[in-house]
Amino acid sequence: MKISIIKIGGNVIDFPEKLDEFLGQFAKFPGHKILVHGGGIMASRFGESLGVMPEMVDGRRITDKDTLDIVTMVYAGLINKNIIAKLQALHVNGIGMSGADGNIIRSKKRPVKGIDYGFVGDIQEVNTDLIKHLLSADLVPVLSAITHDKKGQLLNTNADSIASALATSLAKEHQVNLYFCFNKSGVLLDEKNENSIIPRINEDIYAELRKENVIHSGMIPKLDNAFEALQKGVHNVWIGKAENLMLSTKGKLSGTIIERHRYDLY
Amino acid sequence: MKISIIKIGGNVIDFPEKLDEFLGQFAKFPGHKILVHGGGIMASRFGESLGVMPEMVDGRRITDKDTLDIVTMVYAGLINKNIIAKLQALHVNGIGMSGADGNIIRSKKRPVKGIDYGFVGDIQEVNTDLIKHLLSADLVPVLSAITHDKKGQLLNTNADSIASALATSLAKEHQVNLYFCFNKSGVLLDEKNENSIIPRINEDIYAELRKENVIHSGMIPKLDNAFEALQKGVHNVWIGKAENLMLSTKGKLSGTIIERHRYDLY
Repeated sequence: MKISIIKIGGNVIDFPEKLDEFLGQFAKFPGHKILVHGGGIMASRFGESLGVMPEMVDGRRITDKDTLDIVTMVYAGLINKNIIAKLQALHVNGIGMSGADGNIIRSKKRPVKGIDYGFVGDIQEVNTDLIKHLLSADLVPVLSAITHDKKGQLLNTNADSIASALATSLAKEHQVNLYFCFNKSGVLLDEKNENSIIPRINEDIYAELRKENVIHSGMIPKLDNAFEALQKGVHNVWIGKAENLMLSTKGKLSGTIIERHRYDLY
Repeated sequence: MKISIIKIGGNVIDFPEKLDEFLGQFAKFPGHKILVHGGGIMASRFGESLGVMPEMVDGRRITDKDTLDIVTMVYAGLINKNIIAKLQALHVNGIGMSGADGNIIRSKKRPVKGIDYGFVGDIQEVNTDLIKHLLSADLVPVLSAITHDKKGQLLNTNADSIASALATSLAKEHQVNLYFCFNKSGVLLDEKNENSIIPRINEDIYAELRKENVIHSGMIPKLDNAFEALQKGVHNVWIGKAENLMLSTKGKLSGTIIERHRYDLY
């Protein structure tokens, strides 16, 4: 089975027109597919209207009990169900799930080491049998960034980590491509120029670009994650803008492809 | 296939201890089962904290855009996912769904006739194939009271109506029992005495009890719904308290059973 796993973030979800444009492309995306979404911006805004201010440490949300309730409502309720309704209108048989549903993703509350992140889960296990069962019935799973510990506790979990865990677990038996949509056209040579996309990056090129400080700060964990996914058997990792997703299936330049093999193997 | 459909309301969901007690019993409930839940009280309270006051006409909620967002968050997000996490801890492989997920329940926005109920859906079609597919995989669907119109719009839908529609659709091919949990021990001869349960009601007895005004107001639509379900092929309808659910499987007096056949047929 060939499976595409596509992750979108708040920069798409927060803008109804962008989301509609993306979902239109996602509907046409060929083959078995899984959508993973976060929605942090909307959750922060909604929490603020309830008097629950977002508390971030190093770009990561501290999840107390009230914040957990808010992200559960916004991710697994409002965002997930509206995406599903829109996909159904586009004749895509979406099924919205948290990691608790069908025990799809079991995680473990992050241990306190200096910082207490609260109800944040680190992924332990993916139920690939159920995912395969759903895909075989031509369902399209849409996963929100909520998991559980199998002991009754929901846990807030990074959507990039969910997409990666799904991809690497499914890659053991299937050909899996992983697509990270974000707010840039790809990995850029000049971060101020959206046309300076680096079309392909392998480990050698990555090492070089880091040495020259072309790739820094927020891009580093993204690329580290991508290379880790490749090492665990994922076929291809793509990074780019949600609105260019379909171009990527047509072999057109639309983002950055992270390659497993060294350049000299080609 | 024998299928039990159990509906719980706000009077269970709103009290963590009662909900835990109920879920413990639901976990032990034998055979294929589906849980349907509302959560109106929690949604009202949550809406109020956001400055969205509930507007009711004849006990039915008027669902404007803000209210729809709130019920989607509370029913399909907060309540549904917490129930699933708790069921998973009890080794029940729950899968939480709205009517939009897998196009399980398609509805139609209620036409405006005098009162505009807003984004409220009347059920049109149930996807019994998918339900059967999920039950066969030993999954336990947990449905929140949200449906969709297959045109991209979510719709607030009465949880009793969802339970009835599921039951009557599945009854065409399966033996279906329907359990309505509510805040009384059953249909009571004296509404102030919880021990005055009428154990069995058929149409003749119902007509008599209405004539004598023993059954009135809120019980009438409940019993009308129950008889309608029986006429459409549902095997048995039970009405009682959530905490007495398991007694009903042991043949003990625990609520009221609504019977299809006339008394004189026995």
